[in-house]
Amino acid sequence: MTEENEMTNINELGEFGLIDHLTKGIELVNPSTKKGVGDDAAVIDNEGFQTLVSTDLLVEGIHFDMMYTPLKHLGYKAAVVNFSDIFAMNGIPKQIVVGIALSSRFTLEAVEEIYEGIRTACTNYGVDLVGGDTTTSKSGLFISVTVIGQAKADQVCYRCGASENDLLCVSGDLGGAYMGLLLLEREKAVFKANPEMQPDLDGYDYALGRQLKPEARQDIVRELAEAGILPTSMIDISDGLASEVFHLRKHSGLGCRIYEEKLPIHAETLRVCEEFKMVPAIAALNGGEDYELLFTIKQDDFSKIGQLEKVTVIGHMTSDANEATLVSVDNQAITLKAQGWDALKS
Amino acid sequence: MTEENEMTNINELGEFGLIDHLTKGIELVNPSTKKGVGDDAAVIDNEGFQTLVSTDLLVEGIHFDMMYTPLKHLGYKAAVVNFSDIFAMNGIPKQIVVGIALSSRFTLEAVEEIYEGIRTACTNYGVDLVGGDTTTSKSGLFISVTVIGQAKADQVCYRCGASENDLLCVSGDLGGAYMGLLLLEREKAVFKANPEMQPDLDGYDYALGRQLKPEARQDIVRELAEAGILPTSMIDISDGLASEVFHLRKHSGLGCRIYEEKLPIHAETLRVCEEFKMVPAIAALNGGEDYELLFTIKQDDFSKIGQLEKVTVIGHMTSDANEATLVSVDNQAITLKAQGWDALKS
Repeated sequence: MTEENEMTNINELGEFGLIDHLTKGIELVNPSTKKGVGDDAAVIDNEGFQTLVSTDLLVEGIHFDMMYTPLKHLGYKAAVVNFSDIFAMNGIPKQIVVGIALSSRFTLEAVEEIYEGIRTACTNYGVDLVGGDTTTSKSGLFISVTVIGQAKADQVCYRCGASENDLLCVSGDLGGAYMGLLLLEREKAVFKANPEMQPDLDGYDYALGRQLKPEARQDIVRELAEAGILPTSMIDISDGLASEVFHLRKHSGLGCRIYEEKLPIHAETLRVCEEFKMVPAIAALNGGEDYELLFTIKQDDFSKIGQLEKVTVIGHMTSDANEATLVSVDNQAITLKAQGWDALKS
Repeated sequence: MTEENEMTNINELGEFGLIDHLTKGIELVNPSTKKGVGDDAAVIDNEGFQTLVSTDLLVEGIHFDMMYTPLKHLGYKAAVVNFSDIFAMNGIPKQIVVGIALSSRFTLEAVEEIYEGIRTACTNYGVDLVGGDTTTSKSGLFISVTVIGQAKADQVCYRCGASENDLLCVSGDLGGAYMGLLLLEREKAVFKANPEMQPDLDGYDYALGRQLKPEARQDIVRELAEAGILPTSMIDISDGLASEVFHLRKHSGLGCRIYEEKLPIHAETLRVCEEFKMVPAIAALNGGEDYELLFTIKQDDFSKIGQLEKVTVIGHMTSDANEATLVSVDNQAITLKAQGWDALKS
């Protein structure tokens, strides 16, 4: 361990030295992982399972702000949001490969922190880190994660399998990650205006945790299997409920009705919404990064789903492919717009 | 198609519009690809094969220079260098996922060109493009490609399988891609000094093609199989022969002797070396990006390998793990240094 002020420039190590350093002591936990880091490719053995693959790119200044994002959390989140994509297929993540490009302003210790976060996420979710690529950038930090998962062929949940009258369900609660982001942005603005001011983030643990250290719903996938429920369609909520339900509708060729009063929102999220004078349903519908699961089930599974504490039925699918209705608390029918978070829309 | 001067800003389309636009009409060719682009993850079915996974990150200003890299070629190369990693495991690439981050100075037409290159590579190599992520960056262009391949368990070639006296072989010829890069850098410098000057790149087709549009050695993997040769270890040459042979030595715990006179170098590469007053062996040993295969075979396979026109035996492995000898044309023993191209070394 170097002294706090004696940081190591990553250029001193070189690419292979850095990779060796970062991947030292990685233990493989999945029998399917035949070869991890250290060759041209990782080797994965499949025994009658289907392989699921998903990739995500996290870009500094777009997906995260270095001013308030601890690097360890950034690595953790980069891994977890990819695991979430595999859970959204009703699969289990098994391996990830990681690409990191970073400019010379980053030290070895910085890359180590990112990797520590990634490795903690891997440990928590039983995933093997099996390869990657580490390189420099002219400016900015880029993290690319590709995750590989497994599922039995007849258990995979696509976005397209919903039928009319299927119940629309969501895990956990919504809007917290977005309110956490607003809190961080507010304190950043205060700090920029007056660097003497200390950020005041006490009492916002839940919303900040949702933004900075999200978890993926491995538990829900397990509980659904234990309850004998196979969702007819499923997606994870990364861009906001309104945007995700649009995908389920589009792929299944159906409409939907969602009930505002059913939207699960955490007490702290409600309090922060009040502070920001924001309608909580807006945060729940259009705030992104909750990484909850949105799925449909057959009506026959209604009593079974009632047993799952962390799942809320928020509406149902309808036959009119153009319908995207939010039934408000005062019983008004409002048309939903998929104005979720979109990294490309300016 | 828009007029040449009516470029489309990618922000107008949004992420989902852009993805739909770029992935429209992608045809899946591999039976193992059960689901491609359009869900949380791609779905791949394995029938007793092992899955190979590799990832690469290409960064503007580090791995490519927009001043002389046509975008279509960039996309093509980004895909092909990943396929090369799978061939280096003696596998066949089957699917890729692509992440692209680009700043607002890029138009839709620019992203289309990159994708066109990627899709051409996929078509040429029989690979399915099954997913990706497209987002913005504050500055610069980043391309992340993860490739998934297959191989029978007993056919996978690692870096670690070589034994003493195994013959060291290389496909194709070496140093061309590096000399192509030097040519491009020279013309760039001329152009910067005097923008009126037209680049003079006539008569350098081979070296420029090696740099701008490399191919991966699918043919060698096939020919080795047809000849009944299973390499004992294998790696692809992305960072230069000296660097790659270091990896084979390290993983196999062996030394090596390479004969300068055996190094395969193309006539045009020799001519460009002469122009630049560079020793050809240096270009062959330390120039990167040739994407040839470097592998070891048992001595018993010597007569078989003689039948493969595109393969040259350049030396053999030795028992002394510290040995890395280049036997020069005048019979001097020179110690090789693995000073291949390293994106992190400054």
